[in-house]
Amino acid sequence: MIITMDKTASQNEISAVIEKINELGFEPHLSQGKVRTIIGVMGVNTGKVKTEIFEAIPGVEKVSRLEKPYKLASRDFKSDNTTIRVGEVEVGSKDFVLMAGPCSVEGEHQILSCAEVVRVAGGRVLRGGAFKPRTSPYSFRGLKEKGLQLLRKAADQFSLLVVTEVMSVGSIKLVAEYADILQIGARNMQNYDLLEAVNSCKKPVLLKRGPSAEIEEWLCAADYILNGSEFPNVILCERGIKTFERATRYTLDIAAVPVAKRLSHLPVIVDPSHAAGDFHYVPALAKAAVAAGADGIIVEIHPDPTRAFSDGAQSLTFSDFARLAKELKLIASAVGRSM
Amino acid sequence: MIITMDKTASQNEISAVIEKINELGFEPHLSQGKVRTIIGVMGVNTGKVKTEIFEAIPGVEKVSRLEKPYKLASRDFKSDNTTIRVGEVEVGSKDFVLMAGPCSVEGEHQILSCAEVVRVAGGRVLRGGAFKPRTSPYSFRGLKEKGLQLLRKAADQFSLLVVTEVMSVGSIKLVAEYADILQIGARNMQNYDLLEAVNSCKKPVLLKRGPSAEIEEWLCAADYILNGSEFPNVILCERGIKTFERATRYTLDIAAVPVAKRLSHLPVIVDPSHAAGDFHYVPALAKAAVAAGADGIIVEIHPDPTRAFSDGAQSLTFSDFARLAKELKLIASAVGRSM
Amino acid sequence: MIITMDKTASQNEISAVIEKINELGFEPHLSQGKVRTIIGVMGVNTGKVKTEIFEAIPGVEKVSRLEKPYKLASRDFKSDNTTIRVGEVEVGSKDFVLMAGPCSVEGEHQILSCAEVVRVAGGRVLRGGAFKPRTSPYSFRGLKEKGLQLLRKAADQFSLLVVTEVMSVGSIKLVAEYADILQIGARNMQNYDLLEAVNSCKKPVLLKRGPSAEIEEWLCAADYILNGSEFPNVILCERGIKTFERATRYTLDIAAVPVAKRLSHLPVIVDPSHAAGDFHYVPALAKAAVAAGADGIIVEIHPDPTRAFSDGAQSLTFSDFARLAKELKLIASAVGRSM
Amino acid sequence: MIITMDKTASQNEISAVIEKINELGFEPHLSQGKVRTIIGVMGVNTGKVKTEIFEAIPGVEKVSRLEKPYKLASRDFKSDNTTIRVGEVEVGSKDFVLMAGPCSVEGEHQILSCAEVVRVAGGRVLRGGAFKPRTSPYSFRGLKEKGLQLLRKAADQFSLLVVTEVMSVGSIKLVAEYADILQIGARNMQNYDLLEAVNSCKKPVLLKRGPSAEIEEWLCAADYILNGSEFPNVILCERGIKTFERATRYTLDIAAVPVAKRLSHLPVIVDPSHAAGDFHYVPALAKAAVAAGADGIIVEIHPDPTRAFSDGAQSLTFSDFARLAKELKLIASAVGRSM
Repeated sequence: MIITMDKTASQNEISAVIEKINELGFEPHLSQGKVRTIIGVMGVNTGKVKTEIFEAIPGVEKVSRLEKPYKLASRDFKSDNTTIRVGEVEVGSKDFVLMAGPCSVEGEHQILSCAEVVRVAGGRVLRGGAFKPRTSPYSFRGLKEKGLQLLRKAADQFSLLVVTEVMSVGSIKLVAEYADILQIGARNMQNYDLLEAVNSCKKPVLLKRGPSAEIEEWLCAADYILNGSEFPNVILCERGIKTFERATRYTLDIAAVPVAKRLSHLPVIVDPSHAAGDFHYVPALAKAAVAAGADGIIVEIHPDPTRAFSDGAQSLTFSDFARLAKELKLIASAVGRSM
Repeated sequence: MIITMDKTASQNEISAVIEKINELGFEPHLSQGKVRTIIGVMGVNTGKVKTEIFEAIPGVEKVSRLEKPYKLASRDFKSDNTTIRVGEVEVGSKDFVLMAGPCSVEGEHQILSCAEVVRVAGGRVLRGGAFKPRTSPYSFRGLKEKGLQLLRKAADQFSLLVVTEVMSVGSIKLVAEYADILQIGARNMQNYDLLEAVNSCKKPVLLKRGPSAEIEEWLCAADYILNGSEFPNVILCERGIKTFERATRYTLDIAAVPVAKRLSHLPVIVDPSHAAGDFHYVPALAKAAVAAGADGIIVEIHPDPTRAFSDGAQSLTFSDFARLAKELKLIASAVGRSM
Repeated sequence: MIITMDKTASQNEISAVIEKINELGFEPHLSQGKVRTIIGVMGVNTGKVKTEIFEAIPGVEKVSRLEKPYKLASRDFKSDNTTIRVGEVEVGSKDFVLMAGPCSVEGEHQILSCAEVVRVAGGRVLRGGAFKPRTSPYSFRGLKEKGLQLLRKAADQFSLLVVTEVMSVGSIKLVAEYADILQIGARNMQNYDLLEAVNSCKKPVLLKRGPSAEIEEWLCAADYILNGSEFPNVILCERGIKTFERATRYTLDIAAVPVAKRLSHLPVIVDPSHAAGDFHYVPALAKAAVAAGADGIIVEIHPDPTRAFSDGAQSLTFSDFARLAKELKLIASAVGRSM
Repeated sequence: MIITMDKTASQNEISAVIEKINELGFEPHLSQGKVRTIIGVMGVNTGKVKTEIFEAIPGVEKVSRLEKPYKLASRDFKSDNTTIRVGEVEVGSKDFVLMAGPCSVEGEHQILSCAEVVRVAGGRVLRGGAFKPRTSPYSFRGLKEKGLQLLRKAADQFSLLVVTEVMSVGSIKLVAEYADILQIGARNMQNYDLLEAVNSCKKPVLLKRGPSAEIEEWLCAADYILNGSEFPNVILCERGIKTFERATRYTLDIAAVPVAKRLSHLPVIVDPSHAAGDFHYVPALAKAAVAAGADGIIVEIHPDPTRAFSDGAQSLTFSDFARLAKELKLIASAVGRSM
């Protein structure tokens, strides 16, 4: 249930609504727009509450029921685009945000060289896996805390932010010590335990779409996180879905960008590397992303892709990445974005 | 790497191999077949170890590298079918095991009436959700511990076993107090943290296939569990995959039964209810499962499906379920199974 | 629009309705059930005709608009199961109809030996490709008319019927000279030109589901054929859909059997060979088909699969086929069918 | 089999190779590149011919076997990009070609107004359906020859080319009288009869990818056409594939653009309208297409989408289309293309 307050509603009137929500055993969620305030009524079985209860309160313009299974991520709840500020970077703003780095942090030289290249190319965020989810338990699973330390060091040296994956509730605290943005990977998109716990660190969360998740399910997963946060802190990331086509590892659902941006106020970025699974196709997908309206991309690079511990086939060399960054800048500018 | 011992290998020879594995920093996994012992060498980068090191040890017949990303779940590692004994039930034996119950435990009367119907129909295991993973955070999420208590009580009263889902590492201990078999749901099939932790309870695990998981990825997930267990303790469960077809909620991949049974030694059961998402089609899918060689099915029933807290559309009424059980018995007998 | 006549409606009343339909520029389609007659109003824009026009005619019980895009294939139009009689075989009856033969007719000895094996196993219909649709233009495309002649000869010698594919409008007449049932392949399921022309031969049509066709689209394709036929002459055939799973060539949508049988009155058979693409899995899929309620199966066999001109990997040897036929008989009997 | 001639090979040497190919019962296909000639050996079972037979002929540099099931569409056969010239338009050149028009030709005013808008926006080709393939036989199927006449008239008045679909062998001659480019629709991508017959009109063919066709199957379909043509005459068109996502009608496989351009020398365009099935998402997909390297797009527009006879939901209004064309020009310029 969503309560839209009148443009002229007073703080007292808003408080009265909140009080009533609490009284009924639900939780209020405030969305303060430029012109008016919207209040979400969160909880199980809100459908049983009569709208009249709220319509009677002064300052309430209208009360509407959401038929969508997600609420806080919805444009109905918040009509303006959400901008997520991390340090000096604003994801969801006019800026097109370039995030890049290796699949796995492998060592100091590797991550430092990546960070330098990211910085030079105009990137703002350094990615790198320290805890790696792997299909087979016998694959390399990351340097763990050592990887986090190296990542932080490299990012600091080149004035970048850090985004890295958190795979378990138990490691949220540790990862949050080093990271500016916590990534929840595609495999964990419906790991509700993790989604609900990640807010404890009060940091922005990059939520990858699961490879078989409908966009609606993805937005529901966002609501699991938003529901425990005081402000919208989710960056959506499209990274390809499972289809029958075998020329690429996944099929990048480029339409997910305009669809998610229409249904939701949250920023949307694209991961062309995992979608393609093949470096040949990464630049084309990255360029498609910016043209389609994405707020950024997250790309894998490596000083020597043939020797990467993981995902070498989809990693760009430094020179390919530098060329791509230049091309992206031109397209960003053509669609009214800066990079 | 897999070491096949000679049929006549002595215990000392086996021990020598194990010692060498430990010495190299890997972990040995023993599979004692009827005629010979197979020893898996588990760990990252076993590919760098020369096979000659083991071939030189007396009693070793051959050393082979597995190209598959899973090992312990593989038929190459264990050629006989695995039978998982839980109480008096043997999953993977000649018996076709019928598991049934409501989607969610809703109350004492509901679960007791279900348990009675399951027992009368020849079922051996009572299912029921106490912790419910839900796409939307605003849906009913189960009675939690209260649900577990009711489930246990109902199962005990009608001499049934209990299978129920565990959704988080933090609740494994609690769930294991009440359950005989722990279920890992489709959404958590690649929640590696949970897969590795679930062994702490030393109980069999029913591992549902993720809706976008290739069979190979499913067997890799099984290896995450098997890798921490002293004996094979995983029951695979096919429950439908995501496809373009909309007449059913998922598409039951019935071929997954013979494929998984050919690639793996583990028992395979089928969940026709979640696959169909519509009670009209559940009996046909259940019958297909037994004919295709599944070792059991897990079906949703409800005393009054129209009032179910969750998944009512796919729940069978008691009379439909009783009729189905009779039909299953006839088909089971036609394919040489008892029920 | 569907007009349901009163149980006691006279022939004159029925004629009056038909006359009115013709007068409005539409085409009437009669379905004579056991107790009443249903008349379909076929044509573009029937939605613009007011139902009152027909409701006013004596003998009309009710006039309803179909929201489904298919009509003649629908259970709403014909509630009894349709049985298609070909020679002495009745597809859609209590009999489970076994159809088998090689992918391609390759020579006289090959097809004669197949026909004998089919007959001995209890099969009623001989399949074999004379005109072969091939993904690559450089693959073997069949013996053409010579293949048809051999097929007919072999079938006649062993008292079997012939089903074979027709790929083009131009060859319908030729194929119909030799075949008892014309197959429209999966690639041509939406070749509307062919669907509309095939009726010229007044023979039953086996319509394979396209690998990306929703069940609703499949039934629409059936309507293209039914629309030009005086009696229901379509046998639906499920043969697997395209999904991400790679262990099998396609994913057999076993639920398509109960779904199509619920939505439509037409008989439904299953092709386990093309679905699996691997002989190991064909028996399990065939057995699932009969248990799920299919009216028959169509299976590929070959005297020496390793030397087959096409689809060798999915063809059963004669001995595997004979064993399967025995197993199918037992399951058919368990589900109340004879074979 | 592909025979690469030496750079300095004489015409006589080339003729000798061609003679040998004919002598062996195969068909030669010449690809004259800027620096050298490549000769394809076409036919069934070319795999049985020894490469030595050709290697011995003077002027032959190397003989290689293609493992791919398509040959003429392959980059191995022709390494330069193919440009298809139609009137003054060059598809596959530096120009980004804008094709637009209504789904169906509905009447003179409608198609004339569309043509004017296309011309003003910088479009070069007018699309419009005269023969419409429809899922249901009861839907509007086009104005047929009347539609073709109107389409031609409108295109001529505004100096545009005409692309329109041909659905059957019997209507190729008629359609080719009016059209500059013949479209083969997604449903007919594997209608081999049509693919082989379409060359009779000696016009370029726009080949849409089938909704469940792997890119390799699409290129095989192109080979069916190329095999009967004296010069490369196929324009590939990506239009979305069937997946589980329901927010859009199909999922645009944007990666198909770089994949097809890497595997093949043929031009590749994109149809964002059928992929999206919803006008809201068409501009984003169109912009992604040009950024990803497509050689053009084909878009549906309508003077009043809410009243369109077909596909209204995905048609752009004239003003939305005009705005999109301006945005496309900017992006085209950013990626080095002109429009």
